[in-house]
Amino acid sequence: MQEVAIIGIGQVPVDEHWDKRLVELAGEAVFAALEDAELSRVDALYVGNMMAGQLDKQSHLGALVTDWIGMRGIEAMTVEAACGSGALALRIALIAVSSGIVTSALAVGVEKMTDTSPRETTAALATAASADWEGIHGVTFVGLNALIMRRYMHEYGWKHQDFAQFSINAHANGVKNPNARFRSPITKEIYKKAAMIADPINIMDASPIGDGAAAAVVVPADLVKGQKGKPLIKIAGSAVATDSLAVHDRQDPLWLKAAEKSSREAYSQAGVGPDEIDFFEVHDAFSIMSALSLEASGFAERGQGPRLALDGDITPDGRIPVTTMGGLKARGHPVGATGMYQIVESVSQLRGEAGPAQIDGVKVGMAQNIGGSGATIITHILKAD
Amino acid sequence: MQEVAIIGIGQVPVDEHWDKRLVELAGEAVFAALEDAELSRVDALYVGNMMAGQLDKQSHLGALVTDWIGMRGIEAMTVEAACGSGALALRIALIAVSSGIVTSALAVGVEKMTDTSPRETTAALATAASADWEGIHGVTFVGLNALIMRRYMHEYGWKHQDFAQFSINAHANGVKNPNARFRSPITKEIYKKAAMIADPINIMDASPIGDGAAAAVVVPADLVKGQKGKPLIKIAGSAVATDSLAVHDRQDPLWLKAAEKSSREAYSQAGVGPDEIDFFEVHDAFSIMSALSLEASGFAERGQGPRLALDGDITPDGRIPVTTMGGLKARGHPVGATGMYQIVESVSQLRGEAGPAQIDGVKVGMAQNIGGSGATIITHILKAD
Repeated sequence: MQEVAIIGIGQVPVDEHWDKRLVELAGEAVFAALEDAELSRVDALYVGNMMAGQLDKQSHLGALVTDWIGMRGIEAMTVEAACGSGALALRIALIAVSSGIVTSALAVGVEKMTDTSPRETTAALATAASADWEGIHGVTFVGLNALIMRRYMHEYGWKHQDFAQFSINAHANGVKNPNARFRSPITKEIYKKAAMIADPINIMDASPIGDGAAAAVVVPADLVKGQKGKPLIKIAGSAVATDSLAVHDRQDPLWLKAAEKSSREAYSQAGVGPDEIDFFEVHDAFSIMSALSLEASGFAERGQGPRLALDGDITPDGRIPVTTMGGLKARGHPVGATGMYQIVESVSQLRGEAGPAQIDGVKVGMAQNIGGSGATIITHILKAD
Repeated sequence: MQEVAIIGIGQVPVDEHWDKRLVELAGEAVFAALEDAELSRVDALYVGNMMAGQLDKQSHLGALVTDWIGMRGIEAMTVEAACGSGALALRIALIAVSSGIVTSALAVGVEKMTDTSPRETTAALATAASADWEGIHGVTFVGLNALIMRRYMHEYGWKHQDFAQFSINAHANGVKNPNARFRSPITKEIYKKAAMIADPINIMDASPIGDGAAAAVVVPADLVKGQKGKPLIKIAGSAVATDSLAVHDRQDPLWLKAAEKSSREAYSQAGVGPDEIDFFEVHDAFSIMSALSLEASGFAERGQGPRLALDGDITPDGRIPVTTMGGLKARGHPVGATGMYQIVESVSQLRGEAGPAQIDGVKVGMAQNIGGSGATIITHILKAD
C-alpha cells in the first residue's frame, strides 16, 4: 500500500453562516487547502455530507462543488455515514490515492444546518438512527444519548457532575481556536446549572450544530518527501468499523464495539498503541460519547472514562489531551463536516501550527469520527514525519 | 493497479415492493450475489443510494445493510451522485480492492421510491439538479430533459417519432428479462399516442421509477484465476467524470462532456474503442439521453444518435445493442440502484447467462450511469476472460 500524506488543510469558522450557501462554505475550505498545499488542481474530490438533500434540497454535491471550485470534469462524489461522513471523505481519498487510480485528491466535509427550522434539522438528524426501531418512536439523537448516559451512570455509579470536565476542557480549548463556534470558557457551576435537554443530558453535555466546511489535500507521500517547508503529515492508520444502527440491539449498549475495532485496526497499521498517541480528537457530540470513545479506544478501563477527565488527564498538559481545538462541544458540530475538522485540527497540531492551542512536542495524533450512536466509527492516526 | 473481477451478482425484480423495506431489498440482492460468488463474507460494503434520507427517513445505510446481512462490524458507507449513485458503489469497491486495503467488497445499489407520494418522490428527484438555478424555479427532472430534447430536435432537425426505436427496443428487450418492471412490447403507434408529460417527452420517452436493489461481489482477479465454473468477468475500465449541475451553464447543453471524458478514459484503460464494444447499457432515463450518450461515447456523430436507432443498429442483432435487458425504460429506474442493475445485466450477458435476452458471442460490454442531467457520468467496461 502506497504511503499517503496530507499536504494541505483548510477550514471555515463554524458558525451560523446565513449569508453563505453550502457550496460557498465548501469552496472556501477547499481553496484554503489548495493554497496551503500549493496546488491548483487535483484528480478527484470526495465530499462528506449527511443532510444537504434534506435541508438544502440539494443532493449531488460532488459535481456541484467540483464545478464551483473550477475543476469541472474531475471525478467527484458524496460519501455518507451520518455524523461520520466527514472522516469517510478522507478515507476514500486515502484509498483512491493508495490504489494509484488518482494521484491527488481533495477530501471536504461540509454541512449547513442553521438555515432550516430546529424541527427540520432535528428530524434530518434523526435519520442517522434506525428509522424502524428508533426514529419511528420519535426519539431524537439527544434522547438516544440520554438513555445511554442514564444507563451508564446507573451501571458504573457516576454522577452527572463527574462528566463536567469533558465540557470544561473542550470550552477552555475552544477559546484558543479562532474557528470555534463558542469561545467562552465554562465553569463547574455553569455546567451544573445548564438547562436540561433530555435528562441527564443538559445543554453543556451537548455539542451545538452549525454550518461549516473543512478540507484536506492528499497525495502519495513519496511525491513530497524531502520537500522543504511544512512538516510532512502521513496517514499512518485508517479504519472504518460498523455496529447495529439501533442501540437496543447491541449486546452491551455501553460499549462502542466499532470504536474498539476501528481503533485496534488503526493502531495495528500505525504500529502504535494508545500510549504512543500524543493527542486524541474524540467525537464529543455528547459528554457520554467522550467517555465511551476513550474506553473503547484503550485509554480507560470499561466504565472509567470519566475518571480520566476528573484526574486532569485530558487537558492540553495531561496524559492524553482530547478535543484540543474545542472538540464538537466548543468548535461546533456541523455533522458531515465534523470528521474533516478533526483531521484539519490534528494536522495543525502535528505541524506545530495550532497557535495558542498548540500542544508541545506532538508527533502522533488520533481522530475518531462517530456516525449515529456509534454505528459507524472511523479512526485515523496521523504522524508527523 | 490490481486487476479486479466481479465474481457474484444479485438483483431483485424492479417493482412496487410495498411489502418490503429498503434494507430487505438490499439484503435480497446481496444474498443472491454472495451465493453466486460462493462467499459468506466480505471485507467491506459500499451502498449506492440517492434518496433514502428524504423518502425513507433513513440515512446511514452502510451500517444498516451491513447489520441486516449479518456482517455487523465491517467497513461500510453510502456513496451518492444522484441517479449515478449505483455505479459509484462499484467504482469504490473497485478502488478499495485495487488499493489492497480490502480484499473483497460488496457493491449494492438500492432505492425505494414508491412508498411515498409522487409529489414527494418528484421533489426528492429534483435535488439531483441545481437547487440554486433549476430546483428553485420548480423545474422537475422530466422538465429539464424536455428542454434538452426540444432544443436537440430544433438544432438537428429530428422529429419526435425519430426517437421511437429507443423505447421500442428497450421494451422488446425487457420482455425477455424476468426482473424488468415492464414486460410488454410497445409499437410505433403506442409510442406516438402516449400521454404527454413535458412536451416533447411523453410517457414512452420516460423511464419509470420503482423499488429495487442490485449487487455485485468484487475481488482481485488473481484470487480467482483458473477456478473452474463461471467465466471470469474483469473490470477493464472504470472512470467518473463531472460537468456543471445546471444545464444552462454548459457551453453546449446538447453534448454530454462527462460522458465523453469518462468513456474515453474507460476505453483507454481497457485498450478498446467503441468498435470493440459488443453491447452498451445506456442510461436511457429519457430517450433523448440515449441519443446524447451514444454520441458522446463515440457510437454516433454529433446530432446523429437517433440515426443509430432508426437504422436498427441498437437491437440485439444490431451493430451496438443497447439496453439489452430492457434498460431504464422497461427494466425500470430505481435511481440509486440503476447503475448496479446495469452492471449485473452486463455480467449476465458476458457470462452467457442472460437467458432469452442473451446476445451471442459477447466478450466486451460497457455500462454508463448518469447522475442528474449529465453532471456525473460513470462508465465501466467489463471483459469476459
